[in-house]
Amino acid sequence: MTDQRDTSDELRTDGGDVSREEASFVEYGIEDKPPLGESIFLGVQHYLTMIGATVAIPLILAGLMEMPPAETARLVGTFFVVSGVATLAQTTIGNRYPIVQGGTFALLAPAIAIILAHGGPWETTILQLQGAIIAAALIQVVLGYSGLLGKLKYYLSPVVIAPVIVLIGLSLVDVGDVTRVGQNWWLLGLTLFLIILFSQYLDQYSRYAKLFPVLLGIATAWILAGILTAAGIYTQETHVAEDGSSLGYIDTSLIAEAPLVQPIYPLQWGIPEFTLAFAIGIFAGVVASMVESIGDYYAVARISGLGAPSEKRINHGIGMEGLGNIFAGIMGTGNGSTSYGENIGAIGITGVASRYVVQIGAIVMLIVGFLGPFGALIVSIPSPIVGALYIAMFGQIAAVGLSNLKFVDLDASRNVFIIGIALFLGLALPNYFANFESPGDFQALAEGAAVIGPVLGQQVVSDTIFVIGSTTMAVGGLIAFILDNTVSGSREERGLAQWEDLSEDESEFQTVFERFRSDEPAPVDSAD
Amino acid sequence: MTDQRDTSDELRTDGGDVSREEASFVEYGIEDKPPLGESIFLGVQHYLTMIGATVAIPLILAGLMEMPPAETARLVGTFFVVSGVATLAQTTIGNRYPIVQGGTFALLAPAIAIILAHGGPWETTILQLQGAIIAAALIQVVLGYSGLLGKLKYYLSPVVIAPVIVLIGLSLVDVGDVTRVGQNWWLLGLTLFLIILFSQYLDQYSRYAKLFPVLLGIATAWILAGILTAAGIYTQETHVAEDGSSLGYIDTSLIAEAPLVQPIYPLQWGIPEFTLAFAIGIFAGVVASMVESIGDYYAVARISGLGAPSEKRINHGIGMEGLGNIFAGIMGTGNGSTSYGENIGAIGITGVASRYVVQIGAIVMLIVGFLGPFGALIVSIPSPIVGALYIAMFGQIAAVGLSNLKFVDLDASRNVFIIGIALFLGLALPNYFANFESPGDFQALAEGAAVIGPVLGQQVVSDTIFVIGSTTMAVGGLIAFILDNTVSGSREERGLAQWEDLSEDESEFQTVFERFRSDEPAPVDSAD
Repeated sequence: MTDQRDTSDELRTDGGDVSREEASFVEYGIEDKPPLGESIFLGVQHYLTMIGATVAIPLILAGLMEMPPAETARLVGTFFVVSGVATLAQTTIGNRYPIVQGGTFALLAPAIAIILAHGGPWETTILQLQGAIIAAALIQVVLGYSGLLGKLKYYLSPVVIAPVIVLIGLSLVDVGDVTRVGQNWWLLGLTLFLIILFSQYLDQYSRYAKLFPVLLGIATAWILAGILTAAGIYTQETHVAEDGSSLGYIDTSLIAEAPLVQPIYPLQWGIPEFTLAFAIGIFAGVVASMVESIGDYYAVARISGLGAPSEKRINHGIGMEGLGNIFAGIMGTGNGSTSYGENIGAIGITGVASRYVVQIGAIVMLIVGFLGPFGALIVSIPSPIVGALYIAMFGQIAAVGLSNLKFVDLDASRNVFIIGIALFLGLALPNYFANFESPGDFQALAEGAAVIGPVLGQQVVSDTIFVIGSTTMAVGGLIAFILDNTVSGSREERGLAQWEDLSEDESEFQTVFERFRSDEPAPVDSAD
Repeated sequence: MTDQRDTSDELRTDGGDVSREEASFVEYGIEDKPPLGESIFLGVQHYLTMIGATVAIPLILAGLMEMPPAETARLVGTFFVVSGVATLAQTTIGNRYPIVQGGTFALLAPAIAIILAHGGPWETTILQLQGAIIAAALIQVVLGYSGLLGKLKYYLSPVVIAPVIVLIGLSLVDVGDVTRVGQNWWLLGLTLFLIILFSQYLDQYSRYAKLFPVLLGIATAWILAGILTAAGIYTQETHVAEDGSSLGYIDTSLIAEAPLVQPIYPLQWGIPEFTLAFAIGIFAGVVASMVESIGDYYAVARISGLGAPSEKRINHGIGMEGLGNIFAGIMGTGNGSTSYGENIGAIGITGVASRYVVQIGAIVMLIVGFLGPFGALIVSIPSPIVGALYIAMFGQIAAVGLSNLKFVDLDASRNVFIIGIALFLGLALPNYFANFESPGDFQALAEGAAVIGPVLGQQVVSDTIFVIGSTTMAVGGLIAFILDNTVSGSREERGLAQWEDLSEDESEFQTVFERFRSDEPAPVDSAD
């Protein structure tokens, strides 16, 4: 460890290739392929970290649309299938990073706005959501594959990316699974304690503790909750929250009654419908998710010991996320597909950055999506266990964001000012927008604003402001981006010069077309 | 700038005295004495940054205790007087850092609990608050001057201090002055824009812009609000919030009607009364404020270009804060006295770290406290202007906290894990406790907890948990402290070794007794 630091210091003085030092805790690099059996468990663990969001989003949507239970289970399965397919596509013909793709909270806010605005039965509402997502995602595909988005890279210094990643990590500090009044702190505390115990204390004594802290923590807590349920201590009356979330009660009847295979196929709810205002609202969410995803790319590159992403890799990543959104729209999740910060957190804890492992996990997810009982099993993870997962995962992401600051001159007043104001407003503005029950309430207030009321009051304008203003990383990212590119500061102060040295060469990432065209094997992504 | 960085890199390689590089933006060092005229304006500016808290705390207390208006004005004045005296004491015979001392939000939560629990008229409630504060502060004085607290220093690495300072900075992301529904974004935006304009864009062209961005920003916005009030555009009906906060309306009648001199003296409300349970609640707040203050010391040392504080300096700082709390208890603020992060933010923006300037500001504050119209003028600063101040100031503090990470090995998994979980829980747990209207509501829930309910339900226990759990920096600090001192990691990884090299020598800080005893002039605190 000490040796490695010395080397990196030397390299830094030489302006050399620092990124190529793999972070000290990478256990399996991006190109490594652990044995299949181990890979299945590792892959499942990667997916378990994002289970909270992947189950929460469809449950929220279904609840608001008043979908019946059987269709809700199918919607959850659809999320799993889309996640599996999108992850396989992204890891093979997209940016090839070991990032799980899945449903996104960034599209949830505009989706809720659409559901409230539309007001129809769920059978037509979901078609509206699908149409809006497909339309917005078409623009994303163009932005990505045309190469426009990659150009942004030259204006995105660590001064911008660091607060964006920190804010991704801190975006869930108010999520119900952590902060609900009746939270079961015993179960949440136990799960968190076990994850910390395995990953931080026992990791030196046991390879299993080091590789599977999350899986071991969740499984132990889950089994305990099952035993307490069987013993009649956790009951439907005492350990289920008012909103239906389990606080420890494991509802085995859901698993027993689920159909073995559930039908999930494209256009399963009908032909998507298109409304312009809805598409604009969703596009605001897509913008937020793109900023978040670019942050994720930098984070996963940094935590996997790779150089910062090249322009081409960003383009192909975002372009593929656009295709993932279109696929989600066609399948009918009522949501989109984006990169998941949660599994980046898992890489930080376990040191497993293997793309192969993520792909194996995606295949498992794809299969599980069709299997009713497996899906029900996953859905049965109680809220306190999910809450503990969030704490461990999202904290990691925040800290990984901070680690980008090592490229920034923190003695320069401009940097301290910009990072500080981006972090503060990134958290404060969404708190302001949380005052409003719906985007409509905000519109009503915006109409009355002095001077610019008539413009602000337009639904398209107020919805866009509402969606972006409610998204921590979008607020912080935009503020940091504008200030960092207008307040005077040298490329060295901003860390842009250092990052350019560290960025992988454009040749290091080959698109799928280039790889097919070339006779030689593609160069590996990891430089080690 | 570049030269300075090169030097520091060289020093770092040598394990040398890096801290002695002054941050690039220090305009006036700690020992510098700007001309008196300039110092008055600079000192007032330092104090204006903390005006929000200094006015908010007494207004909240007075509101809850149902104090009549005249006594409320006197309470506000008492806060100013205590702040002035405590600052003069801290900067001369305390830790001698240029930190403003003033009322603390950490004691507000237990104070609210006491007000609700006591339920008597304000005349007796305030005496209970005074007694509890004096008793709790006595322990703080012992902890400080006995030297016990300074020993903590050897267990406080940058891995602990960085998240504590970041969380101090982010503690106000949900403050009403920023996130209230009816906020006047025009006035808030203008004030923030002006502060950014002066400090980040015009600072290169004008020395006044660089030195007085906050004063210029506030004064301009305030005058504009005054004009709009005079023109009848901002009225009592349209621009005063339901809780009485001004959203732009400047109430000149308050200034005109205020008595020229208001009487403020020790024991002005009577003889303090003592109740054990109340003192324990307040002591929990004092613990939180001590963690915060130690973080402040590191922050102010770092931003002023000084070495990390010595054991002795920490002891004398905390001991003096205890004396400040006792003084506050005797004068009767119903609150205590602690170090203010806000003016550390101001140092970051203006580069003015002069102790002399802070002392001049303290004298102004002391006088203003007795002058009714001046106090009324200060109280008249509308909420949106205060909100803009918070955004600029607290963002700075968060970013200064982050800059401590340059001493930490961010490639070590343990550090990333600890910092991440401390930040996440530091924000999430207070969000959980915000669910409860009062500490009593939490007690009612805690009583019902499985197994440990009978212990948790004790008012002393539940109040203590409530107060500490509601304080971002206390939660994050405790979690980071425990993990950092139990998860294995070398002193180099943790940054302790680097910090020890950077710490000022014990001889560099002389207590007031030592300075009197010595015939020679005291060595200067700044090493330049």
